Amino acid sequence: MFIKYPGGITNNYLENKKPDKKKDSLELSISASNRGMSFENEINLSNEYYSANNIAVITKRPTPINVVKVDYSRGSRIVDAYFEKQSTTDYNGVYKGRYIDFEAKNTKNKTSFPLANISLHQIKHLENVQKHGGIAAFLVRFELLNEVFLLDASVILEFYYSGKRKSIPHDVFIQKGKKIKQGFMPRYDYISAIEEMYFSS
Amino acid sequence: MFIKYPGGITNNYLENKKPDKKKDSLELSISASNRGMSFENEINLSNEYYSANNIAVITKRPTPINVVKVDYSRGSRIVDAYFEKQSTTDYNGVYKGRYIDFEAKNTKNKTSFPLANISLHQIKHLENVQKHGGIAAFLVRFELLNEVFLLDASVILEFYYSGKRKSIPHDVFIQKGKKIKQGFMPRYDYISAIEEMYFSS
Repeated sequence: MFIKYPGGITNNYLENKKPDKKKDSLELSISASNRGMSFENEINLSNEYYSANNIAVITKRPTPINVVKVDYSRGSRIVDAYFEKQSTTDYNGVYKGRYIDFEAKNTKNKTSFPLANISLHQIKHLENVQKHGGIAAFLVRFELLNEVFLLDASVILEFYYSGKRKSIPHDVFIQKGKKIKQGFMPRYDYISAIEEMYFSS
Repeated sequence: MFIKYPGGITNNYLENKKPDKKKDSLELSISASNRGMSFENEINLSNEYYSANNIAVITKRPTPINVVKVDYSRGSRIVDAYFEKQSTTDYNGVYKGRYIDFEAKNTKNKTSFPLANISLHQIKHLENVQKHGGIAAFLVRFELLNEVFLLDASVILEFYYSGKRKSIPHDVFIQKGKKIKQGFMPRYDYISAIEEMYFSS
């Protein structure tokens, strides 16, 4: 979830029950913010770096929120609304003219990435992106291993549709994905991984 | 604004004061929904058609909302939040592998399109998109003329930066843009215009 906190507002509410109760989701990484910056914030900062340095334009899709009631006497304040499920993915944009689309996920699992993290809507969306010549991928962080991988969506689609396993082994990320170089700027250099995976022959 | 209304909820609040008081904006077209479907909804339906018919994948970016307070005793209901300004554009996606990014605007003006409708953030974003080889455009509806045009962002950038005029004459749309074919499915066939403008030689 992409939520900016105005001054003085804490993000305690994110540490309580989540709207869709997903485990190991990107959202949960926000609740770990006391221990450092969330995965999402780190990706957002990486994107700012890419944009400022003319490398790529990748943006976060805002969390879809269904607005029910607005109080105009209080300066258009939203007083009743609820979270909607993201029907597409977290990030998209352009690199070297190509369309890039990816979902970012964090897991506390050490040995595999649970497929329950992914919705059918997202699978369908990424499949469509590939059909139209776009680059579709997952950026997965194994939080406790401090490893982040870029994995082409086709690998995840294969596991998802085969229905044989409920998770993708860490080994698959090692063999078929690209491990992301971590640093200060950009925090996660996933564009280098995209360059290697899709633009180098 | 991309807001779905749950059953029984009216969109009256959109007919009152807007968060950023823009005239002629896309948002205002929603308030005209009593007289028919809003420009935004018609674009969304066109996008659904493109997706279902394997022509392109273009999605609406949700309106960014800053969540201040969530009531978990009421099923994760948002009880305090406010609208943020969209810092990018309304729509993006992929067509024939290329990245497409555009802003949709409605105007009740018959002779020109007021530049006040566009924010500097959006101008910068579209400029960046072009720098990276993406297609950046505006989809502008002259509501009272019942005409919709696709115009490459570069034309708008030129007017915007020259500072000589506060609006772009309708004639410029005729000469430098593509008039969108209107129909039932898709309502606005802007992908055909993109094909002609960017993919035909």
